[in-house]
Amino acid sequence: MSRPAHRRPEYHKINKDLFVLTYGALVAQLCKDYEKDEDVNQYLDKMGYGIGMRLVEDFLARSCVGRCHSYSEIIDIIAQVAFKMYLGITPSVTCNNSSRNEFSLILEKNPLVEFVEELPAGRSSLCYCNLLCGIIRGALEMVHLAADVTFLQDRLKGDSVTEIGITFLKKRDEKKYRRKK
Amino acid sequence: MSRPAHRRPEYHKINKDLFVLTYGALVAQLCKDYEKDEDVNQYLDKMGYGIGMRLVEDFLARSCVGRCHSYSEIIDIIAQVAFKMYLGITPSVTCNNSSRNEFSLILEKNPLVEFVEELPAGRSSLCYCNLLCGIIRGALEMVHLAADVTFLQDRLKGDSVTEIGITFLKKRDEKKYRRKK
Repeated sequence: MSRPAHRRPEYHKINKDLFVLTYGALVAQLCKDYEKDEDVNQYLDKMGYGIGMRLVEDFLARSCVGRCHSYSEIIDIIAQVAFKMYLGITPSVTCNNSSRNEFSLILEKNPLVEFVEELPAGRSSLCYCNLLCGIIRGALEMVHLAADVTFLQDRLKGDSVTEIGITFLKKRDEKKYRRKK
Repeated sequence: MSRPAHRRPEYHKINKDLFVLTYGALVAQLCKDYEKDEDVNQYLDKMGYGIGMRLVEDFLARSCVGRCHSYSEIIDIIAQVAFKMYLGITPSVTCNNSSRNEFSLILEKNPLVEFVEELPAGRSSLCYCNLLCGIIRGALEMVHLAADVTFLQDRLKGDSVTEIGITFLKKRDEKKYRRKK
């Protein structure tokens, strides 16, 4: 039921380098503002959450994706359509459990760190790209899906790939809805 | 002697909305950090300057522009190649004096403010897009051109267009070089 993106107007496309460098400036600013890496990570996630909430409507309109019927389909849309559209890459997807609600997006290449050689000194716990987790979380929330989204591996921390873990929290979501009624 | 951009690899292109929203988050953060609009403006300009310095090398490689022989040619490259590449728009250009060192880039549409309805409350002197001025200044500096770059009009402030003024400081630049020798 899902279709890949098409007919995106050309004027919506830009070279990504300006974004990548501006993101770097944002992270640097937050590192100035917050002493603890955990606070920077949390703040990036929070910022991303707000961005994801705003981005998703436009994404759905522009990408022409149809209704998804499984978490697996949703993850494929995130990897193949959203990542391609907004970061120019297509992560590979793995499913990590038999209940099929835990997935990983594996990024062989991460454009957001293209200008970053290593984490800043004394910032070994920084999740430099945590904005992405927040964006995914915020976008999913807007389509009524609760999820935990975190970095499981990070090339900036010496791992061989960058891996974003997404766990759909179906039960909690259902409980919440039940409670509201 | 200048040629428009071509043969840019497709994987460098992304949808601009993520950049535009991330930029908004950066400005919001600086507004939290600095009470005075002038300080936010200055900081955005400074950040942009650093970004421009890093961006220009990549821009020259990717855009395949040749050597320019006049300020007028340089402005055309900024408007027609750089703005198109990084923001997806092509501002119109005017020359504002007979010495042909003062120019304006007129932006009918400014993608950076696409999600911004108005300036934040109490922030009437904010130059929301001042990062752009810094980027242009930094990029020009790297090709040994000193310039003043400022917003002359801003739609966010009620003007009918957004206008970026660029004044090449040839004399000061020459003096500086002479002093160094």
